[in-house]
Amino acid sequence: MTALLEPTTARQTVRVDLGERSYDILIGPGLVAAAGAEIARRLPGIRAMVVTDATVADLHLAALMTSLASAGIDATPLVLPAGEKTKSFERLEETVEAVIAARLERGDAVIALGGGVIGDLSGFVAGIVRRGMRFVQIPTSLLAQVDSSVGGKTGINSPQGKNLVGVFHQPALVLADTGVLDTLSRREFAAGYAEVVKYGLIDRPDFFAWLERHREAIFAGGPERAEAIAESCRAKAAVVAADEREDGARALLNLGHTFGHALEAACHYDSDRLVHGEGVAIGMALAHRFSVRLGLCNGQDAVRAERHLEAAGLPTRIDQIPGGGFPVAELMRGIGQDKKVSRGRLTFILTRGIGAAFVARDVDPAAVEAFLADELAHAAA
Amino acid sequence: MTALLEPTTARQTVRVDLGERSYDILIGPGLVAAAGAEIARRLPGIRAMVVTDATVADLHLAALMTSLASAGIDATPLVLPAGEKTKSFERLEETVEAVIAARLERGDAVIALGGGVIGDLSGFVAGIVRRGMRFVQIPTSLLAQVDSSVGGKTGINSPQGKNLVGVFHQPALVLADTGVLDTLSRREFAAGYAEVVKYGLIDRPDFFAWLERHREAIFAGGPERAEAIAESCRAKAAVVAADEREDGARALLNLGHTFGHALEAACHYDSDRLVHGEGVAIGMALAHRFSVRLGLCNGQDAVRAERHLEAAGLPTRIDQIPGGGFPVAELMRGIGQDKKVSRGRLTFILTRGIGAAFVARDVDPAAVEAFLADELAHAAA
Repeated sequence: MTALLEPTTARQTVRVDLGERSYDILIGPGLVAAAGAEIARRLPGIRAMVVTDATVADLHLAALMTSLASAGIDATPLVLPAGEKTKSFERLEETVEAVIAARLERGDAVIALGGGVIGDLSGFVAGIVRRGMRFVQIPTSLLAQVDSSVGGKTGINSPQGKNLVGVFHQPALVLADTGVLDTLSRREFAAGYAEVVKYGLIDRPDFFAWLERHREAIFAGGPERAEAIAESCRAKAAVVAADEREDGARALLNLGHTFGHALEAACHYDSDRLVHGEGVAIGMALAHRFSVRLGLCNGQDAVRAERHLEAAGLPTRIDQIPGGGFPVAELMRGIGQDKKVSRGRLTFILTRGIGAAFVARDVDPAAVEAFLADELAHAAA
Repeated sequence: MTALLEPTTARQTVRVDLGERSYDILIGPGLVAAAGAEIARRLPGIRAMVVTDATVADLHLAALMTSLASAGIDATPLVLPAGEKTKSFERLEETVEAVIAARLERGDAVIALGGGVIGDLSGFVAGIVRRGMRFVQIPTSLLAQVDSSVGGKTGINSPQGKNLVGVFHQPALVLADTGVLDTLSRREFAAGYAEVVKYGLIDRPDFFAWLERHREAIFAGGPERAEAIAESCRAKAAVVAADEREDGARALLNLGHTFGHALEAACHYDSDRLVHGEGVAIGMALAHRFSVRLGLCNGQDAVRAERHLEAAGLPTRIDQIPGGGFPVAELMRGIGQDKKVSRGRLTFILTRGIGAAFVARDVDPAAVEAFLADELAHAAA
């Protein structure tokens, strides 16, 4: 936490320490424009394919292509449709064939310019073409900067569930341009902020308190924004370094996600109703209230977590999702299908208070069901 | 090589040492019938999907399903069409969705019952469903037993080339049933034998000499067959353990493969004209003759390698491929597209004699072209 108390510089570097797969995340304004120079310096001689979506292409692709060209990097752009549907087998095949057609070799790079969808798809492509090419991420959403930047998870969706198909493939470099976040809507920014809050709630109570003091400055931009992103990346990197392939402690990063995924599935992934970060915000609030109900966490901590999420404009209750209609049985099916299920038992991330989350295995499904029924009855009342 | 001089037992075990990804290859007769017990003992409590092709299913699927059921393993079969075309995006998606639909979890297994096509596809599926499930291989061709069993390479073909898409994913267990090889045609067995010979030619001159003495017994069955397979697996395991992700010494395993792949491509992968092992046999003979021409290898060693391949019923010259018609320019394109190209230069495996292969980087494309032109002119004469 020391870094949070010191004056912040314009650009920060977070090192993700994974042995021979270690890499740097650069965080600060102007990194799209500086991308060519940063990539050329670290990965000399590479050629590249830039994968992006139509929305991001309009805003940032020209600047990136200019930067790459001026650094002498031969790069081909591929513009995919925006939206979650792009995480499909069809787009995977299309992108793989484009990379092969560009005659890129193992030492060359796939560069992802976009949010989580583009990052997840492109990373998967980089992980499987020639059994693994270099991968550079330029995340353009707050969610992607603080979540997908670290951990090496890549993948696409199956008709039967999200992110059920993919590989672990670490990037060679991540460039998190804090300036591009000004092009996000407030709702998108808030959704990413839910994941920032999550790192405080997992095991960094000082960071949570710092966020309570600096939330407005983070939303407004400035050095606090870069600092919040850097601290989030450090938090995730610390967990991932201890557990690269998600067998143990890494499960803590799923705080709020089991409930959140079930809610997203019940909304049929309709982003007009609920985006991922909002599902996580409600999921974290539910995890705290469920922990209070189980006698694990005191009520004041749960309220404090909720208040901070609400102040950021995030939902904390199921009845805040427009459209309504969440049968408990459907949510329980969603919870069971979530891939964090371990051999039939329910695994949840519960908490003993702010910054004191833990992995609870063998959670009784009946207790979860009764809790959700009460939450929904409360909403209906 | 000590093992070759000792009495062989009915069943051998080769340990592939890759740290936490280490696994055993069991080699011997009767392993399909014993599969349930062996899998249940090593991977207790798993459920499984058995992926196979129509040809192999007719011969061995019932025996395997019976064995799994009697060991209490809940398994679902998936029968795909036989042939190289099954290594496609379409079959990948179909198999992935079948595994997810069976609600298999990360700790469960995909079991590949078949040759290289089924093994490569199934291993890729196991590598990407839920970002990595367990994988058990029951290779039913000699080629798959001595090649795909070791190394963790999985993948599918692209319209633009073979094996251009895939992952490294190590199996949890390999069961190489030497009895099922009796169901192969002599041509299929010989094609697999080319890869056995390859291990002798790379760096095991004593093994090559042992093969010269025992070739007939290996083709007939018996303990020499299991011993030849075990020694091949040990040879490959030694190379892979030193270089799991194919950056250096592992390239030696490509002896004969750069020429071989170019010939396969020029035949449009028509197995009536040329199967992989035959391409490798011709490729190894070409690599030896090219090495003689470059003054690296003496002529007697090249002749000795050729004679042994010919005695096994394998081709050693391009003009032995039915149909003819191999323009040098087309072969050179195939060589350039081969994924063992490193940043534009040609990398070949050349040799200083029997068991003395080495990785030659920066091979002059003009020298290769002139050599092939002479080989083809000789054939036409």
